Amino acid sequence: MAGCLSAFGLKNLWVVDAGKRGNGMSRTRGEKILVIGGVAAGPKAACRVKRLMQDAEVTIVDEDSLISYGGCGIPYYVSGEVADETELRSTSFHMLRDEKFFQNAKGVQTLTRTRALSIDRKKKTVQVEHVETGARQELSYDKLMLATGSQPFVLPIPGMDLDGVFSISNLHKAIEIKKRIAAGKVSRAVVIGGGAIGIEMAEALTDLWGVETTLVASRPQLLARIVDYPMAAMLTRHLREKGVTVLLGEGAAEILGRDGKVTGVRTATRTIESDLVISAAGTRPRSGLAREAGLEVSPAGAIVVNERMQTSDPMIYAGGDCVELRHLVSGKKIYAPYGSLANREGRVAADNMAGIPSVFQGALGSFILKAFDVSIGATGLSLEMALAEGYDADESLTSPYDRAHFYPEVGIVVLQMVFDRRTRRVLGLQGFGPMNDGVLARIDAAVPLISAGATIEDFANLEMAYSPPFASAIDSINAAAYVAENICDGRLHKISMLEFLTWMDDFSTHPDWRALDIRHPNEAEPFIKKFGEELWLAIPYNEVRARYQTLPVDKELVLVCNSGTRSFEVQSFLDSVGLKRSLVMIGGLNVVKKIGVDWYPE
Amino acid sequence: MAGCLSAFGLKNLWVVDAGKRGNGMSRTRGEKILVIGGVAAGPKAACRVKRLMQDAEVTIVDEDSLISYGGCGIPYYVSGEVADETELRSTSFHMLRDEKFFQNAKGVQTLTRTRALSIDRKKKTVQVEHVETGARQELSYDKLMLATGSQPFVLPIPGMDLDGVFSISNLHKAIEIKKRIAAGKVSRAVVIGGGAIGIEMAEALTDLWGVETTLVASRPQLLARIVDYPMAAMLTRHLREKGVTVLLGEGAAEILGRDGKVTGVRTATRTIESDLVISAAGTRPRSGLAREAGLEVSPAGAIVVNERMQTSDPMIYAGGDCVELRHLVSGKKIYAPYGSLANREGRVAADNMAGIPSVFQGALGSFILKAFDVSIGATGLSLEMALAEGYDADESLTSPYDRAHFYPEVGIVVLQMVFDRRTRRVLGLQGFGPMNDGVLARIDAAVPLISAGATIEDFANLEMAYSPPFASAIDSINAAAYVAENICDGRLHKISMLEFLTWMDDFSTHPDWRALDIRHPNEAEPFIKKFGEELWLAIPYNEVRARYQTLPVDKELVLVCNSGTRSFEVQSFLDSVGLKRSLVMIGGLNVVKKIGVDWYPE
Repeated sequence: MAGCLSAFGLKNLWVVDAGKRGNGMSRTRGEKILVIGGVAAGPKAACRVKRLMQDAEVTIVDEDSLISYGGCGIPYYVSGEVADETELRSTSFHMLRDEKFFQNAKGVQTLTRTRALSIDRKKKTVQVEHVETGARQELSYDKLMLATGSQPFVLPIPGMDLDGVFSISNLHKAIEIKKRIAAGKVSRAVVIGGGAIGIEMAEALTDLWGVETTLVASRPQLLARIVDYPMAAMLTRHLREKGVTVLLGEGAAEILGRDGKVTGVRTATRTIESDLVISAAGTRPRSGLAREAGLEVSPAGAIVVNERMQTSDPMIYAGGDCVELRHLVSGKKIYAPYGSLANREGRVAADNMAGIPSVFQGALGSFILKAFDVSIGATGLSLEMALAEGYDADESLTSPYDRAHFYPEVGIVVLQMVFDRRTRRVLGLQGFGPMNDGVLARIDAAVPLISAGATIEDFANLEMAYSPPFASAIDSINAAAYVAENICDGRLHKISMLEFLTWMDDFSTHPDWRALDIRHPNEAEPFIKKFGEELWLAIPYNEVRARYQTLPVDKELVLVCNSGTRSFEVQSFLDSVGLKRSLVMIGGLNVVKKIGVDWYPE
Repeated sequence: MAGCLSAFGLKNLWVVDAGKRGNGMSRTRGEKILVIGGVAAGPKAACRVKRLMQDAEVTIVDEDSLISYGGCGIPYYVSGEVADETELRSTSFHMLRDEKFFQNAKGVQTLTRTRALSIDRKKKTVQVEHVETGARQELSYDKLMLATGSQPFVLPIPGMDLDGVFSISNLHKAIEIKKRIAAGKVSRAVVIGGGAIGIEMAEALTDLWGVETTLVASRPQLLARIVDYPMAAMLTRHLREKGVTVLLGEGAAEILGRDGKVTGVRTATRTIESDLVISAAGTRPRSGLAREAGLEVSPAGAIVVNERMQTSDPMIYAGGDCVELRHLVSGKKIYAPYGSLANREGRVAADNMAGIPSVFQGALGSFILKAFDVSIGATGLSLEMALAEGYDADESLTSPYDRAHFYPEVGIVVLQMVFDRRTRRVLGLQGFGPMNDGVLARIDAAVPLISAGATIEDFANLEMAYSPPFASAIDSINAAAYVAENICDGRLHKISMLEFLTWMDDFSTHPDWRALDIRHPNEAEPFIKKFGEELWLAIPYNEVRARYQTLPVDKELVLVCNSGTRSFEVQSFLDSVGLKRSLVMIGGLNVVKKIGVDWYPE
């Protein structure tokens, strides 16, 4: 791979005269930089640009009184793991990021409780209004940065204005939610939305507060479009095991109330009593200010920026939850309101305001999520999205141990790799594993490769650091690529997890098949007992070469083992002796168990 | 970065006719594949090639009786964490990988206790000898694979043949070491060698068995050339805290004994009593067989292979610890005897034997290591090696929190990024952190980028999955790149950790400097008390803008904070007001504390 990325790197090349101390950008001396928005992208841009141009006058405007807080930490604040909201507003060295801090430490002015009303691009001014006094003021700028963020999508259903219905749109809401829980006013809660924030909030309410929590999602799976069925199903099962009632494909139809206070949520099929409703049904970019100023805004309402984070007015930059980004696989514009991206975008905007030609090329929308005792993450396209985008997409699904299998503290990591059969390009990777950084490591390693258009083979050969306490000698990401390669080359013939579960649910839909369990006889026994030889055949893995002649030649054989690895080996052999109707159940019973099915023998 | 890697990916393109089930490579039908060496690369190649060509006759030859064991697991077997040696020889589904297993499950023949004596390349035969009976046999091959592995470097000092002196060259040695410890025969041990295996063995002896262990290393630091001073120094400190006596720059000069049994180790300056000596002074490739057959072997004794793992005889492949690889940064040939690489090389060799044109491009020598409660890892070139290779190399050193600082279970991860000032290419990354997968995640994410020639800017913009339980919004790897970028652009003027510690050890060497401590007054106070204002000045970070006029203009100011972040901000400001003689102490006191210095106030 050597050398390929450097071509891109060179685009960023910016060598200042190191001998001349100070940034020496005289043309930008004394510039007025105005930043609208005081969370993530805004403060990041403001502080960076001030560091680069110490003589610039940098001002942040925000309508809120609380600024520069870690919004992604809200679930951990509500749960109580973060004791006090000030921790979300503090630096890593425990200094509160309030107006004074920005002034004294950063040299940046802040105007809080101040709403930006309009931009006059000709005059280069912004009309602002003080929220409490109503006093108006005109602020001039040389360069303007819009970091207006997002707003929660308000479900178009009755009852959203009842007391006790919250979105997680800012820290005040979180403080109020926690206050109510801590005061013992919440025993039952409904979370609306099956995305990351909904899941994190469901955990926050259940885990430490013991609130009886129901999560309702209008889509048929959690994390819809971001991950595929097996991942979502394992997650759902885990949430249920931890006490969250998860209702899928069952959106909230009405919020019920009495005397102005919430009492429950009605779906199409039931009513759930509740003292608290959290609406986490997604967010929308806040781009009204930009649109009214005539800046280009996407049909979805996100501000359009180039790779220098400039809007259609080159003097106005934008970043964070209010902008659209380019997806690095599909090339299409996406909306990815993630705190980490916001910070990077803010930094790139600041660089460009100061004359450093940094670029932000786009994103894969990579995410990682803690849900009780598991971690789940993804990057790039899911299979569903890849197919929708028109790729000749397919998947591998694997469930190896997450470190050397002989190491004492070992878990199982499930990886799903999505690839294009035609170009062999890897389009995405999803992971589900124990609550440690193992899934993160694989997602993070996949990001630069997928961004660069890497193929299955690049992943098969990817060098991953190895030592038994951290990984297997054949890393899980390499193993995922091996399976993808074998599928892509027509060496591995699979049945998908969903298909297998459908077949199991109703044997009659596919009458001409048998499971062939190749695990240890002790493992296979309860299955044979339960299903009989009508369905469940068994030959141990290491006896197949000697005993394959006993297998039915007229049936489709679904090869079953724990992770799928042995099944592939057996398939290779069966193919070579003319038994060409076998299918590998990719992911194996490891995944079936984690999904949870009622037919699984005790 | 999109598209850059795909050029490489296409080289690997291999689309078989998916409609034609089976591998269909008729020209390779019935081939005889002979594999010399039964650990890692050998079995991997043998089993893969058999899967790809089921009608091939595949035979593994090994002089040992134990084959296909996880050699990297030996320290965990010796420590007792892995209870039984059979676990190292078993599959993840608990099947012992013995001769029968290979025959029945894999369809691969094994000849154990059988030594390969010579290769007749014209006749395509290998002369072998049964170790016990002395019986000889000639085995013919169509394709031959050499996976002859490595042998321990035997120190040229007296006493290496004494009873109780071991190398970790195979599983038998490990079994014998553990037997002696378990029988209570070892109360004091010396481990010779400051590399990964030496460190792992020192932990194994100390942690669970309580053996009084001394590690002696002839080089002045642990993990010499692989990591730089700060990383090695933190590791040394941690080992010492955990009870290992670490002696650096003090190689073993003689092994002492009585009645044929080891009693101690003599260095240049002392004698260490010992019942057990483990020599872990590195390994050398085992390439005698290859050399005698006239195959090309490097001056260092490693078998030369191309990217298809073919030796200079295209019918003979090689992989694992016996071959040399191309370093993906320097382009030079290296010797990287790692189990994970061996497996990948074996798979590529098998593919090519079966007609699939897979390639193995080389490696960065990435590693990760558990040492008691910490993890340490690296990939690419260390600063020392980069300078030796002639790069205009420099380093950034950072010590941020390893997840959102407000998240309850937070640790510090120290990253050192090595880059080339001229091309801005990142040459290497080193990490030191708590014992979890956090360092691994950053090393693994860095590998594909460094392999591809990525610049500092690629790392600055690298998308890393974020959520508070896993990372900071600005990931540690992004932060490392930010600092590197600021250094490279001449915005950040630093003093290295080693230089700072040297200055502190003897103030007089640099009489014209002062430390400027910008931390909270409570943190600075003990330092002021200890060193006085002669050396230690203090202005809190958020008061510097108001109070900088009190600073001496004629002194060099070393800016001191915990991680270095605030120091850079203060430097930017001081530069802008004409105080241009400040230096940022990169890494900060976080690193100083982890290195451990006697002057650190209680």
